[in-house]
Amino acid sequence: MKPMGPIPPYFAGQGELTIGGKSAAKWVAEAGSPLFVYDMGIVRERLARLRAALPDACEIHFAIKANPLPEFLAAVAPLVGGLDVASGGELARALKVKDAAHISFAGPGKRDAELEAAIAAGATLNLESEDEAERALAIGQQLGAAPKLAVRVNPDFELRGSGMKMGGRASPFGVDAARVPGLVRRLIDRGADWRGFHIFAGSQSLDTAAIIETQAATVALAARLAEEAGAEPPLVNLGGGFGIPYFSGDTPVDIDAVGAALGETLAVRPAVLAKAGFAIELGRWIAGECGVYLMRVIDRKTSGEETFLICDGGLHHQLAASGNFGTVVRRNYPVAVAGKMGLEPAETVSIVGPLCTPLDRLADRVALPHAEPGDVIAVFLAGAYGASASPAAFLGHGPAVEIVACS
Amino acid sequence: MKPMGPIPPYFAGQGELTIGGKSAAKWVAEAGSPLFVYDMGIVRERLARLRAALPDACEIHFAIKANPLPEFLAAVAPLVGGLDVASGGELARALKVKDAAHISFAGPGKRDAELEAAIAAGATLNLESEDEAERALAIGQQLGAAPKLAVRVNPDFELRGSGMKMGGRASPFGVDAARVPGLVRRLIDRGADWRGFHIFAGSQSLDTAAIIETQAATVALAARLAEEAGAEPPLVNLGGGFGIPYFSGDTPVDIDAVGAALGETLAVRPAVLAKAGFAIELGRWIAGECGVYLMRVIDRKTSGEETFLICDGGLHHQLAASGNFGTVVRRNYPVAVAGKMGLEPAETVSIVGPLCTPLDRLADRVALPHAEPGDVIAVFLAGAYGASASPAAFLGHGPAVEIVACS
Repeated sequence: MKPMGPIPPYFAGQGELTIGGKSAAKWVAEAGSPLFVYDMGIVRERLARLRAALPDACEIHFAIKANPLPEFLAAVAPLVGGLDVASGGELARALKVKDAAHISFAGPGKRDAELEAAIAAGATLNLESEDEAERALAIGQQLGAAPKLAVRVNPDFELRGSGMKMGGRASPFGVDAARVPGLVRRLIDRGADWRGFHIFAGSQSLDTAAIIETQAATVALAARLAEEAGAEPPLVNLGGGFGIPYFSGDTPVDIDAVGAALGETLAVRPAVLAKAGFAIELGRWIAGECGVYLMRVIDRKTSGEETFLICDGGLHHQLAASGNFGTVVRRNYPVAVAGKMGLEPAETVSIVGPLCTPLDRLADRVALPHAEPGDVIAVFLAGAYGASASPAAFLGHGPAVEIVACS
Repeated sequence: MKPMGPIPPYFAGQGELTIGGKSAAKWVAEAGSPLFVYDMGIVRERLARLRAALPDACEIHFAIKANPLPEFLAAVAPLVGGLDVASGGELARALKVKDAAHISFAGPGKRDAELEAAIAAGATLNLESEDEAERALAIGQQLGAAPKLAVRVNPDFELRGSGMKMGGRASPFGVDAARVPGLVRRLIDRGADWRGFHIFAGSQSLDTAAIIETQAATVALAARLAEEAGAEPPLVNLGGGFGIPYFSGDTPVDIDAVGAALGETLAVRPAVLAKAGFAIELGRWIAGECGVYLMRVIDRKTSGEETFLICDGGLHHQLAASGNFGTVVRRNYPVAVAGKMGLEPAETVSIVGPLCTPLDRLADRVALPHAEPGDVIAVFLAGAYGASASPAAFLGHGPAVEIVACS
């Protein structure tokens, strides 16, 4: 038997699993399986809690890459101060639900057409290189518009404990800190509407102390770069990096502690940042826990000493849960038999999908109550980097149904 | 500097990379980038070579999961004896290009609708469990048709050196060998059209001796199971498992040696298999080397000591090349600057895609001739498990263009 991660507290009840006020069985009966259900009540609750914890000077942005479903974006956009996008495709989706003044576009290798779309719409470009800056300035000139340009900084430190380190090393992301002040001066001199800094040191960290320390270092770096550039940034995007507990032993980030520490940091910030606004950009933390992936058991079989529940959902919809996306060691996401929440485990089973590959294993030898064909299996933490980050076309089973439940 | 895998011999020329008689630059100029080009001339050449190597009693099947592009299937279907599918969606595609008598459907967790579609069409079902057998028999009865049923066997041995082991252990795939004879008897007694065995011991092996040994063991296992069942199998699908060289130090399977050994094995096969046909089922070996993924360099930047070529293609189209699909240690696929084939390397660069994640790295510190924005980068071995096995929707950059070049 192998451990699994903790079931999010929103769902850890008894009996029937309920999502957005409706039982998992009812969702499946109505919409078929496999399907994702996203409970916006959970998103609202988390954002309200985070808003209360953060200092007023800091707004919350949603990184839509975590869940770009149009219905999800429509529901989350009014709840956050800004949307961050990472491609022309995401920009188009964001513009349908948010004013361009509150949209910023980061990501390496932006094509000219993407730069043009952002400048024409009035969204902010987070510049990833000096070459990209030149291209954006040239396109702004062609369009007769002062482009809104922020500089993404490759910081000279990293977020400790983060699943994906994005600072403290050579990187395709952002401009190395030492070259940033010169670039900012050039942008201003050439008539751009300089919007400030975007500094992202890592993601998926559960280490509260490391997040606090990184945020303080990020504010200090922004102040230093602004002083060297001789210019006051309108906005400092502090990045995100708040993880969520996926695996056994994981515990959530202490949001209150982070917010209090950031408040203290901002209270004594250098004069060059006195008028700056701040933003925290989160994807996974906002969207991850609200989503549940529901599958039906199609077959139950024993091979050798192992029992398998073979389900109609798999890695084509939930690649990360199979351990094949950005993880080195495969560990179990939390899963449950949806009709038997809170019951004592009765057996050890492996949960696999219908793909004809050994990679398609969503839970490896977990202890669960007994399940039979027809029963619904829930895979939690499916709200971020699930459907959109999985190979939906692989093996021809088709895309998943996705439902936003506005409870 | 880190090594990369060998460029397939079909492309290892001088100067301009040519695919299907046209330069990479011309493909990109005509069709845009990023794009996949599949050269059917290479597929034909490989299949002709394999056909010549194999004994007459053994036909070649294509596992369409490796590349289910309709235009690709239309081109490959006339070149092979059968198509193997792994879902109802793949079945529908296969039926457009091949007679149902030459289509077989394997894969765990087949839904009733999938079983029904296969039985109604007259395709062979490779049964993955006793429960699935019961459901197939019941559906056959409802339809008034004798279902064509083969039994997928979970062998009690594995293919040594295979990237994905599928035998010799508890498995969601197939029926444990010890229970197969009883199942075959039941199928025959209940009026099914029993089609034989499907025995798949592993995939992506480059170990010629192991493949030879596994094929011999597979034939012996089929004979033993047939004798115990007291029935002569019309077809024994020996699985596949032939790998292709992806990484530094990899060498190709010796097809001639495999074919000769299989010929010897079949020449002395037990009487119960005297009338049996045989099949080898290959996906990657047939399709992998014919495909090239072409990207344009958008940005070139230096960060710290590292130089990055930031391209318009990435893991959303070629997940496996980023090392995030079924591999534990990230290694470099072969890549090239398409306009400078065969030139001496001039620098060490990392090739990354446009996705805003550190995972999107298609080549890590490889030695290449100098490249600038606008140049075309080729990622080889993109014909199998490329476009269809990647998260195309991730970050909203859109799907790749795919072109079948019938040179």
